[in-house]
Amino acid sequence: MRKVAVVGVGHGKFGKRTDATLRELAFEAVIPALEDAGITQNDLEAGVVTIAGEEFAGQGAPSALVGDYTGIQPRPVFRVESACASGTAGLKAAYGMVSSGLHDIVIVVGVEKMNAVSSVRATELMARAGDTRWEYPFGVSFPGFYALFATRHMHEYGTTKEQLAMVGVKNHYYGARNPVAHLPKEIPLEEAVNAMIIAWPLGLYDCCLISDGGAAAILMSEEKAREYTDTPVWITGVGSGSDTMMVAERPSLTSLSGVKRAARDAYKMAGIEVKDVDVAEVHDCFTIAEIMAYEDLGFCKAGEGGTFIEDKQSYIGGAMPVNVDGGLKSKGHPIGATGVSQCVELVKQLRGECGERQVEGAEIGLSHNVGQTGQFANVLIYSR
Amino acid sequence: MRKVAVVGVGHGKFGKRTDATLRELAFEAVIPALEDAGITQNDLEAGVVTIAGEEFAGQGAPSALVGDYTGIQPRPVFRVESACASGTAGLKAAYGMVSSGLHDIVIVVGVEKMNAVSSVRATELMARAGDTRWEYPFGVSFPGFYALFATRHMHEYGTTKEQLAMVGVKNHYYGARNPVAHLPKEIPLEEAVNAMIIAWPLGLYDCCLISDGGAAAILMSEEKAREYTDTPVWITGVGSGSDTMMVAERPSLTSLSGVKRAARDAYKMAGIEVKDVDVAEVHDCFTIAEIMAYEDLGFCKAGEGGTFIEDKQSYIGGAMPVNVDGGLKSKGHPIGATGVSQCVELVKQLRGECGERQVEGAEIGLSHNVGQTGQFANVLIYSR
Repeated sequence: MRKVAVVGVGHGKFGKRTDATLRELAFEAVIPALEDAGITQNDLEAGVVTIAGEEFAGQGAPSALVGDYTGIQPRPVFRVESACASGTAGLKAAYGMVSSGLHDIVIVVGVEKMNAVSSVRATELMARAGDTRWEYPFGVSFPGFYALFATRHMHEYGTTKEQLAMVGVKNHYYGARNPVAHLPKEIPLEEAVNAMIIAWPLGLYDCCLISDGGAAAILMSEEKAREYTDTPVWITGVGSGSDTMMVAERPSLTSLSGVKRAARDAYKMAGIEVKDVDVAEVHDCFTIAEIMAYEDLGFCKAGEGGTFIEDKQSYIGGAMPVNVDGGLKSKGHPIGATGVSQCVELVKQLRGECGERQVEGAEIGLSHNVGQTGQFANVLIYSR
Repeated sequence: MRKVAVVGVGHGKFGKRTDATLRELAFEAVIPALEDAGITQNDLEAGVVTIAGEEFAGQGAPSALVGDYTGIQPRPVFRVESACASGTAGLKAAYGMVSSGLHDIVIVVGVEKMNAVSSVRATELMARAGDTRWEYPFGVSFPGFYALFATRHMHEYGTTKEQLAMVGVKNHYYGARNPVAHLPKEIPLEEAVNAMIIAWPLGLYDCCLISDGGAAAILMSEEKAREYTDTPVWITGVGSGSDTMMVAERPSLTSLSGVKRAARDAYKMAGIEVKDVDVAEVHDCFTIAEIMAYEDLGFCKAGEGGTFIEDKQSYIGGAMPVNVDGGLKSKGHPIGATGVSQCVELVKQLRGECGERQVEGAEIGLSHNVGQTGQFANVLIYSR
């Protein structure tokens, strides 16, 4: 297995980007990534484009459009899709192509244009990622699924609505310090707790944003990485798993078995334990999802996620800094871009380029990216 | 680079499958593939699901559904999409994961349920794979694009409508001998030439079918392949390329530059020349596409594709047997399944299991799979 490094990263502005089309959002990420790597499109051998839903932008087979507009063409592209975990699935596919020797330099471009449709329509399109025979027709959309997880977590472990809200408060605290964040403002705890209910117990500040934006990462073989950079960030662990399609079939509503499998395999491949991780990006599509991630990834024991955030253990200075870029909650969640955006943040953290959000001396980073309600789960380990 | 073999293949019945849902079509392919490989789902490490359009079946993130229903879950899946070249793009991604050592056994499941919507709606959905700002709004759908290629080929090289029709006649001849074909009946040349015009010069028998169906292939590392089979079929070449998004920007309408790049790279990686290929599966979405493939792949010179079929060089016994399973034209074209279906046919050909369609002594097979109008192009070489 050849070693694989991330050598260049680029990130566009996340937000309600009425000023940019899908292809332009991709362009905003690809060009900085190429500049960061010190290469041009001519050095690329292939591209992987991660876009979750073609119905958002109304473009079929959208990776061709992205490949053409960003100058990857005439080199090949394909699209990888795993709902909200598309970005890390694309990174996994690219890792395989580079590690195997099929290609030496591959760009992964994550992008989504969600606000071309209304937020109601976007929610409906996302709901179709639930089982369209046995879940979607009965009206379950994603806030509803995660509300089920939250109420069960409250029932089993005594987790409180305030603890849920604290996750949002933390992520907005850091997002306010991230120039590419969709909603870069701090939210007082009281406001978060008392916000309009979306699906009880989840209020407005428990739910991530519907965002437009792009992120890109350039992967290279060890030989190429040594040629182009003195600060490669290695992908040292790749783990993935899945949970049942229907939430009703699961033995637990407070844990995602696919995440546990992914974490186990990623730690093993990287040859590390959870205590070795210095900074983590986790999939906080809802605040309960971040709390479940603390537990499934082993940052704390099952049931202790609520006190983990209450004790500020996931702030910088705590046991495990989590989502210090603002996470999906404040930075935003253009779904196909999110896993790649996590990669961008971790590469910058391991290079020490994050300014006031920097986790000092970070050497190992973890990315946790979940699709649907756990049907897709990827954990990637990055090391400097 | 570790060697990768195809050890098991499975193929469902292609057709207008009103009796089966998307997940059931996948099941029909996965189970025979597992049986063929002599393994169960427990031996799998991951799955790649290739589905071109989620709007056909109305299921978002459909790979989770397929993974769950076919028993790949709790192992991970992701979806690879490259329009009509999705199947081979998925095989490429799986090749990378196995060759790199990330996984030892990966299943690739290609499936599409196109007839859940009307054929008019299906044609419209496919048209959206053209540029939705600069092509689709002006009414160009795929028969129109390929009609442009055909008229230009006729103008430049004197190719005739009869020669186009001969491709359809050949593919129906062989499709009539393939039990999984969608339309397993022979078509007389006169009927093909005089058929209803879809987009001149392309008539009804110049256009492939809108099909439902699934195909699956199980890829293994060399070590695992030696453990499970005495007849591994190796993937020895993987090449890919892309053409411009807009057809209007291309220097030629009679050749696909991405196919030439893909073929060059695939031949080089396999260490072969075109004359070493014994049997080919090419992407005959329209009869002109097969003629262009003869030329771009080097089976004959540019402009000679028309006489190549007229001289029956692509029949068994000719210079290069092409689509002896019936091709997209007669076997059918459930778009996400097609590249995997080509793999199934070639594996069976190289194992000598094709009965009256068998190319005797075939040792090297070529798969050519094109998405959109060449924006995606993959060429794979299989060797026994």
